[in-house]
Amino acid sequence: MAEYLVGIDLGGTNVNVGCVDETGKVITKHSLALGKPKTRKEVLESIYGATEETLKRAGLKAEQVRAVGIATPGTLDIARGVVVFAANLPEWEDVPLRDLIQKKFPSRLGTVLENDANAAAWGEYWAGVGKETRLADGRHVSSLVMLTLGTGIGGGVVLDGKVWHGFKDAAAELGHITIDFRGRPCPCGNIGCLEAYASADSTVRRFLEAVKSGAATNWERAVREHPEEVTSRRIHEEALKGDVLSRKTIEETGFYLGVGIVSILHFLNPQMVVLTGGLTGAGSMLMDPLMRVVQERALGRSREDVKIVFARLGVDAGFIGAAGCALTALETSAS
Amino acid sequence: MAEYLVGIDLGGTNVNVGCVDETGKVITKHSLALGKPKTRKEVLESIYGATEETLKRAGLKAEQVRAVGIATPGTLDIARGVVVFAANLPEWEDVPLRDLIQKKFPSRLGTVLENDANAAAWGEYWAGVGKETRLADGRHVSSLVMLTLGTGIGGGVVLDGKVWHGFKDAAAELGHITIDFRGRPCPCGNIGCLEAYASADSTVRRFLEAVKSGAATNWERAVREHPEEVTSRRIHEEALKGDVLSRKTIEETGFYLGVGIVSILHFLNPQMVVLTGGLTGAGSMLMDPLMRVVQERALGRSREDVKIVFARLGVDAGFIGAAGCALTALETSAS
Repeated sequence: MAEYLVGIDLGGTNVNVGCVDETGKVITKHSLALGKPKTRKEVLESIYGATEETLKRAGLKAEQVRAVGIATPGTLDIARGVVVFAANLPEWEDVPLRDLIQKKFPSRLGTVLENDANAAAWGEYWAGVGKETRLADGRHVSSLVMLTLGTGIGGGVVLDGKVWHGFKDAAAELGHITIDFRGRPCPCGNIGCLEAYASADSTVRRFLEAVKSGAATNWERAVREHPEEVTSRRIHEEALKGDVLSRKTIEETGFYLGVGIVSILHFLNPQMVVLTGGLTGAGSMLMDPLMRVVQERALGRSREDVKIVFARLGVDAGFIGAAGCALTALETSAS
Repeated sequence: MAEYLVGIDLGGTNVNVGCVDETGKVITKHSLALGKPKTRKEVLESIYGATEETLKRAGLKAEQVRAVGIATPGTLDIARGVVVFAANLPEWEDVPLRDLIQKKFPSRLGTVLENDANAAAWGEYWAGVGKETRLADGRHVSSLVMLTLGTGIGGGVVLDGKVWHGFKDAAAELGHITIDFRGRPCPCGNIGCLEAYASADSTVRRFLEAVKSGAATNWERAVREHPEEVTSRRIHEEALKGDVLSRKTIEETGFYLGVGIVSILHFLNPQMVVLTGGLTGAGSMLMDPLMRVVQERALGRSREDVKIVFARLGVDAGFIGAAGCALTALETSAS
């Protein structure tokens, strides 16, 4: 009999839920927009509603599910299953999310809370680009670092086949490694964070700054009239149409990501670095300058045979990985 | 019956060998200056000689030793026990050091090759400041990051009670994480490496640059007449005597180290960060500005309860840790 897992990925704008099998294959999934929830109760009801709908579509009762994983942003206490704080959700402090979910959906092994970027990293590791990749000697990958490029930059670290959480579940804040100690201030309080240069939002910001300071661009009028409509995707599209400033902006993002990845290689020498998020739609315009920096700046041994690739699972990686993390954590603790 | 281990720490100028018990306690030790060896054979003879002398002082035959660990700089292939390359030693390419040592000193479990900074990290973890430290709940430390501050900056990473080597044994090159992507060039080929700012040598270089560009200092004449005699230790001494530029230089080194440590905390969120090397003799003049940066720049959760301390074992950490790494690796592979 096949075993099923449920993964829940709570974001600032959506909750994505999916039912997967024991290999991470998606059986069914459901996404629900959060709208503008005003209370903790409203957020919880969205989570519950999306999960109920997913179970219904999969034709499963909670009792038939082996394990449930829930991935969330914010400061977590994973051992206690508590979201200590999340800036983007209302009244979201000290929420005992693991136990609330387990009470509402009493799966057989239990429920596990996981950081959202760690979950995405595990999803790609377990069921995405990591699963498909073989080392030169035919072995599976066992170490992987993920960068999620969005409003900010998140990170997930898999070492020796396990998610590395750190002392206080605060590891892999890869958006906040410093690339210029006297550089751009970051909302986190640090200065010169990778995120302040290379996130999707920072890419837009750098482009708007350039236009404001007089750099020429083919779509200057649109930019000046509706700066709020400038997205990293649009910048990439204009670059493809031949706009030099747009291309330069995306390529610079690739350069900054390369600088961050050089530190990642020197720090952990992982087998794989995976990039995900809408910005990766820029493809080779992002990857080529990135790889150039890695070639030029990383120590030979630290970049030898390392695979630096785009993710395969898109936004599904979060719920797939949440489900997988739950299975791994609960099977490990049971053995 | 007590069990004994031997650790060998091969540096660019010395080979330090020690015999330790199963808890890492030093029974006897011996240091030999390498002089200016011209051939691979001369280096090997120094290693053999220092090890023979140590065994003699300990009253042991090689067959009575449980395991031997050898720590070296350079590019290693740990699984094969081979030093692929080391810049500071003559003819030191593809040296099958593990097997050479095991043949010369046939210890019972065998010989293990380890990176020098990893060995020092393991020494402090196993038998030094890590051993003495307890977490708030009384547990031992299980994750530790070490920075060795010397000519360059080396790094060692212990996670979940194990040295993290990385894909190609090239992890923990913490001197080469970038702190300013457009900053000082580093001999490694990267730009703005931590090492280019905060090693002992870089501290001296920054001081000499400041004097050359006209900054006032109480010992200007000595500096101008004998710049080759300026050391980080001397700069610290002059700072203690009241020289403002000397103090500023040491404090800046502390600032740069703090920037690097912020990235370390954000990356791995370890329980402990340990600093070693002669530069740590500067004590609070180094530590105070370092801690200030960590307070100001690191995410609250990533620095919560983290211990940032100086090492306790000095140069002995290398051979102690080499011995301990050998024991751990061989007992793990035997079980």
